[in-house]
Amino acid sequence: MKSIKVSLKGNSYNIIAGSGVLVKLGGQLKKLKIGADAYIITNAYLKSKFGRILERSLRDFGFSLRFKLVPDAEKSKSLAQAARILADITAYDQKKKIFIVAFGGGVIGDLAGFTASIYRRGTPYIQVPTTLLAQVDSSIGGKTAVDLDQGKNLAGTFYQPRLVLSDIDLLKSLPRKQLVSALAEVIKYAVIKDPRLFVYLEKNMDRILAKNSGCLEFIVARCAHIKADIVSRDEKEALGLRTILNFGHTLGHAIEAAGSFNIYNHGEAVGLGMLCSCGISRSLGLLSQRDFERIEVLIRRAGLPRAIKGVNFNKIISSHYHDKKFIGAKNKFVLVKKIGQAMIKENIPLELINEALRERF
Amino acid sequence: MKSIKVSLKGNSYNIIAGSGVLVKLGGQLKKLKIGADAYIITNAYLKSKFGRILERSLRDFGFSLRFKLVPDAEKSKSLAQAARILADITAYDQKKKIFIVAFGGGVIGDLAGFTASIYRRGTPYIQVPTTLLAQVDSSIGGKTAVDLDQGKNLAGTFYQPRLVLSDIDLLKSLPRKQLVSALAEVIKYAVIKDPRLFVYLEKNMDRILAKNSGCLEFIVARCAHIKADIVSRDEKEALGLRTILNFGHTLGHAIEAAGSFNIYNHGEAVGLGMLCSCGISRSLGLLSQRDFERIEVLIRRAGLPRAIKGVNFNKIISSHYHDKKFIGAKNKFVLVKKIGQAMIKENIPLELINEALRERF
Repeated sequence: MKSIKVSLKGNSYNIIAGSGVLVKLGGQLKKLKIGADAYIITNAYLKSKFGRILERSLRDFGFSLRFKLVPDAEKSKSLAQAARILADITAYDQKKKIFIVAFGGGVIGDLAGFTASIYRRGTPYIQVPTTLLAQVDSSIGGKTAVDLDQGKNLAGTFYQPRLVLSDIDLLKSLPRKQLVSALAEVIKYAVIKDPRLFVYLEKNMDRILAKNSGCLEFIVARCAHIKADIVSRDEKEALGLRTILNFGHTLGHAIEAAGSFNIYNHGEAVGLGMLCSCGISRSLGLLSQRDFERIEVLIRRAGLPRAIKGVNFNKIISSHYHDKKFIGAKNKFVLVKKIGQAMIKENIPLELINEALRERF
Repeated sequence: MKSIKVSLKGNSYNIIAGSGVLVKLGGQLKKLKIGADAYIITNAYLKSKFGRILERSLRDFGFSLRFKLVPDAEKSKSLAQAARILADITAYDQKKKIFIVAFGGGVIGDLAGFTASIYRRGTPYIQVPTTLLAQVDSSIGGKTAVDLDQGKNLAGTFYQPRLVLSDIDLLKSLPRKQLVSALAEVIKYAVIKDPRLFVYLEKNMDRILAKNSGCLEFIVARCAHIKADIVSRDEKEALGLRTILNFGHTLGHAIEAAGSFNIYNHGEAVGLGMLCSCGISRSLGLLSQRDFERIEVLIRRAGLPRAIKGVNFNKIISSHYHDKKFIGAKNKFVLVKKIGQAMIKENIPLELINEALRERF
């Protein structure tokens, strides 16, 4: 079990990662003095599989609890769903000692965090992420969101959880496709910030794909540490430091959107986006051919695609210009100088972007 | 024209109060570097009366603008209305340089502030309050809210505006009943914090009721200053310092609710609540008979009721026990030691509350 601190003015909290930590939830909550009544937002599958463990752990420490089930799909991330939860929560919240538990992947984490942030102008909540992607990325940093018809994550808040509890054992039942998708984010952290993590991934990729507990604990804790460090220094994205976490995401989002979100999933698209960014970095003389190849090999070994199939080239380019990360007419890319070191560059010429993207076809 | 600073870590802002300051809005916004496109949330009446002034002032400084009209009623403070605004705003917000203007009373201020706080995880906004109540109270302090079916203000955020611009001239068309209602909050500030303001009110009440510009500017600026000072020291109500602002509100809410919100308006109920709190304070030997009488006389001279008619005594007592300000079973009152000095006391015996309330019948 590893503990990582997210240091923030006034609202610091810990990320706890390890095998079997779920049974310790009640004890961890007791230490936080977070309230008496747990309102657990999750889905039917997770409740049926882990509901009893949660219930026992919480009851052992005197907590009451109530489950709120939401559909396991992006459509749950809506203002309408948040409104339904708020109506339900007021019925349960008689003693004004409620706190919210987000028990699920990114969708549940974003939705529960958003709801917590607006209920009574902020109600304490914790994240118990159940997917690798949520454990290494979305559960950390306090970004909450719901989607609007007009686009993803258009409504949300910055609102920090009081605890993130990542039980590695929950990943045992994770479908391989989801594991692989999340590895794109793991590789991202290594490329932008951590050459030793990169070497670790090179040495242990097969064991990671086989869900070796030690390896999973190592990468979850390591990624959490990197993200916690960046978030600590730029909680609300005001200084631009969090921008580095968008490595691979600028073109990644465009690839995802151009495929109408059903050709490539988020991780696959981010993997392809990272390769494009590395291509641009190499063209600009920033990244060596040797490092470029190591990154490409690692992405392939993780099971992520290196080539784009079934998505139209021009559609990606035009999607790219509608990306929400554009401010005004400028584009902005996270580029790589060497493995473990990234930089942000604006106004990359379109021909360089085209060239790097074309290499993926 | 007076300028008052609200000092907060990272997000300080000014309150500007004076006659005719509305025409200076464009220039003030230019200084803030707040964006290029103003999205003005208001109602049809205010737009027809002041829309052109706003438009000219903003266009003179190169801003684009769009009006969003919402009904002038408490029912506008809903998640559904916030969702409609968010859908509309995305259509306007092409250049990602939008900011929101709350142009109205408390309902519009709360709704616009809430919408701003969640659109893209926080979009800059300013308050241009058009009622005395909003100018002295709700526009300052960053509390945003919408109502749920289950209760008022149950969803919301703490989210500070970048500017509060209070044009005293807008109060000229304010109905007398609204002016009087707001004076309850003005008297509140004087009683809890400012003996000189109290003396000023004693001397100038008739001129205030006649809407003398100098008097209105003085009281708006003075109240803004007091609230700004309290908010600066306890932005998110974490230290309990803001609690003092609830003077008169504990029983006031109960009186409002027991009359189903149509016997007494907010200010009238708060006035009655203050008198009850003063009664309790006197019974406990905290407040002198002389100060009690001065407060009672001032409340009467403002045109606020001193006696409760048409609301059932027992209904007030039972409403009181459902007040959201109760944590667990404790009650909590803001009491007065002398004019200008208040204190917070928990667990007031029910018989004292009953006695102070009965005195109002």
